[in-house]
Amino acid sequence: MSSAKTPPVSPLAPAFVPDLPPIRGVGLATAQAGIRYSGRTDVLYVGLAAGTQAAGVFTRSRCPSAPVDWCRAALKGGSARTLVVNSGNANAFTGARGREAVALTARIAAAAAGCAEDEVFIASTGVIGEPLDARKFEGVLAGCAARIADGAEAWTAAARAIMTTDTFPKCATRSAEIDGVPVTINGIAKGAGMIAPDMATMLAFVFTDAALPQPVLQALLTRGTAKSFNCVTVDGDTSTSDTLMLFATGAAKHEPVSDPDDPRLDAVRAALDDLLIELAQLVARDGEGARKFVTVEVGGASSDASAHRIALSIANSPLVKTAVAGEDANWGRVVMAVGKAGEPADRDRLAIWFGDVRVAVAGARDPDYSEAAAGAVMRESGVTVRVDLGLGTGKARVWTCDLTKGYIEINGDYRS
Amino acid sequence: MSSAKTPPVSPLAPAFVPDLPPIRGVGLATAQAGIRYSGRTDVLYVGLAAGTQAAGVFTRSRCPSAPVDWCRAALKGGSARTLVVNSGNANAFTGARGREAVALTARIAAAAAGCAEDEVFIASTGVIGEPLDARKFEGVLAGCAARIADGAEAWTAAARAIMTTDTFPKCATRSAEIDGVPVTINGIAKGAGMIAPDMATMLAFVFTDAALPQPVLQALLTRGTAKSFNCVTVDGDTSTSDTLMLFATGAAKHEPVSDPDDPRLDAVRAALDDLLIELAQLVARDGEGARKFVTVEVGGASSDASAHRIALSIANSPLVKTAVAGEDANWGRVVMAVGKAGEPADRDRLAIWFGDVRVAVAGARDPDYSEAAAGAVMRESGVTVRVDLGLGTGKARVWTCDLTKGYIEINGDYRS
Repeated sequence: MSSAKTPPVSPLAPAFVPDLPPIRGVGLATAQAGIRYSGRTDVLYVGLAAGTQAAGVFTRSRCPSAPVDWCRAALKGGSARTLVVNSGNANAFTGARGREAVALTARIAAAAAGCAEDEVFIASTGVIGEPLDARKFEGVLAGCAARIADGAEAWTAAARAIMTTDTFPKCATRSAEIDGVPVTINGIAKGAGMIAPDMATMLAFVFTDAALPQPVLQALLTRGTAKSFNCVTVDGDTSTSDTLMLFATGAAKHEPVSDPDDPRLDAVRAALDDLLIELAQLVARDGEGARKFVTVEVGGASSDASAHRIALSIANSPLVKTAVAGEDANWGRVVMAVGKAGEPADRDRLAIWFGDVRVAVAGARDPDYSEAAAGAVMRESGVTVRVDLGLGTGKARVWTCDLTKGYIEINGDYRS
Repeated sequence: MSSAKTPPVSPLAPAFVPDLPPIRGVGLATAQAGIRYSGRTDVLYVGLAAGTQAAGVFTRSRCPSAPVDWCRAALKGGSARTLVVNSGNANAFTGARGREAVALTARIAAAAAGCAEDEVFIASTGVIGEPLDARKFEGVLAGCAARIADGAEAWTAAARAIMTTDTFPKCATRSAEIDGVPVTINGIAKGAGMIAPDMATMLAFVFTDAALPQPVLQALLTRGTAKSFNCVTVDGDTSTSDTLMLFATGAAKHEPVSDPDDPRLDAVRAALDDLLIELAQLVARDGEGARKFVTVEVGGASSDASAHRIALSIANSPLVKTAVAGEDANWGRVVMAVGKAGEPADRDRLAIWFGDVRVAVAGARDPDYSEAAAGAVMRESGVTVRVDLGLGTGKARVWTCDLTKGYIEINGDYRS
């Protein structure tokens, strides 16, 4: 999509983009490298203080992008000094040229940051299958390194630089204490389409000044992902490039913590989880063509995993999503989506709510069901679909958006 | 959808609806019972000669409709004397009232046909979750039984009576010989949306005058389904009511056959398979909002089952389907869909074709790839997407349609 046809901002966007505070040890700069877009920034460079530890979760696609392969390998070192993200080209399914492009990017970034190549992390988003000309980073990254900043404007610019069909930048911040020492967590994300992370979302980067060793960081991130980015879907299509990374600079001088279950991490764990949920929800709020934000809650399932699969079956059903778009409390389609999930379900125990309106109970329409009340729920910009399976105690919650003509418009003419 | 806003016929409809020949032992009649639609037929009554054997495959939904439950139970007897199908109301997720409605329908039909209730088969399609008032069949079915016919008009009327959002009636016929004795096979189907049969399509009924015992009939149908209705998808949503039945009246006086693998059945098996494929393809050609008929062929997979799952992942991907709608040879999205299937795949061995144009090979864009040639393929009304995984000999083929604004229009305002 060229900058010439900027889509309107999603009606589900938050009223304002929050100002993110500085994170000690993190400096950001953006640039126009002309990867694909013209007239807008398309490169984010993040400088990280010596000693920064990194954790990551990535797409479960069997055909991951070259940058995902790179990051997985680089994570083995655990240490990070710079992150380079470009939008416009995903460098996915680009064969040997893709691997060369990543290697060249790492060389250029390492020279700019004055670090080892395996301390460089790389993410790319945009068109799949087009070779990425990494020579465009030559000079650009060194220029970025020379002017890194940590103010609120720098964070917003960073969130903007990684956007593709996103209609608003996605930023979140939290603060917490570890053993009485304050720490800050900032996160940025991009999403929009091809969103059904099996592990992470399209791209999200989280930074903190906490001083945590890599295994602790990885444990916190993996657990947080299960409750956030693995619970969001736009279209059920999983990207080849999904990347969620957490960087900890260690600038906060708290006592060492070596166990992810250490109670001293309770506050920071809660803050991180909360921030990840906020970012994941922002991705659903900016789903391509989205007009409604949808929360799907499933309870009474035979297990949490079963509830999760049923919730995703509902959230990914085109018929459920178009019903929401049409403001139609069509719970028959919810039954259909429960039934097709292949998970334990007993038709005659099902109950379904839209918002607080119970529309179905014990395998049939709720006798007290008011079409008017359900209709009022459906006209809200946020709709909660709740299902109780009546089988056990398994539960799950996922977020998605409706399926509108806007999605077709955006994706029926993306490349041209 | 009321008859007031009749949608235009799918551009993928065949040029004409074939005239079906009579099948000895099969008589059809249709009626207006006012189930939901007004001004159109919504009931099909089929009278079947004494001795007719029945086979069926049904939705794998964990929340099947009441008629599906009924048919599964009735099939245990194996014998069939009448089939009653209504459109407008699926009698699904209607609880005890649904079971009562089916039982009442069976009583009325059995009285009309002069048979036992467990020789009555019932299928319903339409809205889910609304109680079906089976008293509307009172009188109607007896009237039908009194005027059954077997001419071409009766078959076309039958195919029309079971339509919901279908834009054209779906009919197919084949003839074959068993041991030198000619037999005929006729089939009708309806589809349109909520089409991702895990076992069968929405509704399809096939009739033959062959004289085959129930186990043989069931074996032929089950095998034929695997290559036909289980290979078609419109939106990945599986109906609660999918029903595919095969009735054999035994009017053809060939020698008894008791083994489904008997070589004397080769011709009739091939004819049946071919007819089932034609009906399944007609369903995809009338997918809601369809403008393009899409064939997905996957080869070189680690097994046929793996190839089938990858083919369905491609065929169900909203991003692939919108790319086809946009006439965009966006093979990157095909890679994405292969990758998300979770099946064995090696990115660097993948090759992808649109029609005969190879667009990607060995994990990257084909160096000889012509955008113009691929573009010409995409502008056709039928598009074949072919993937070679380069891993083994597993292969599969599925059919689908593109995803257009028409789908959103139809499903964003179905009930109201």
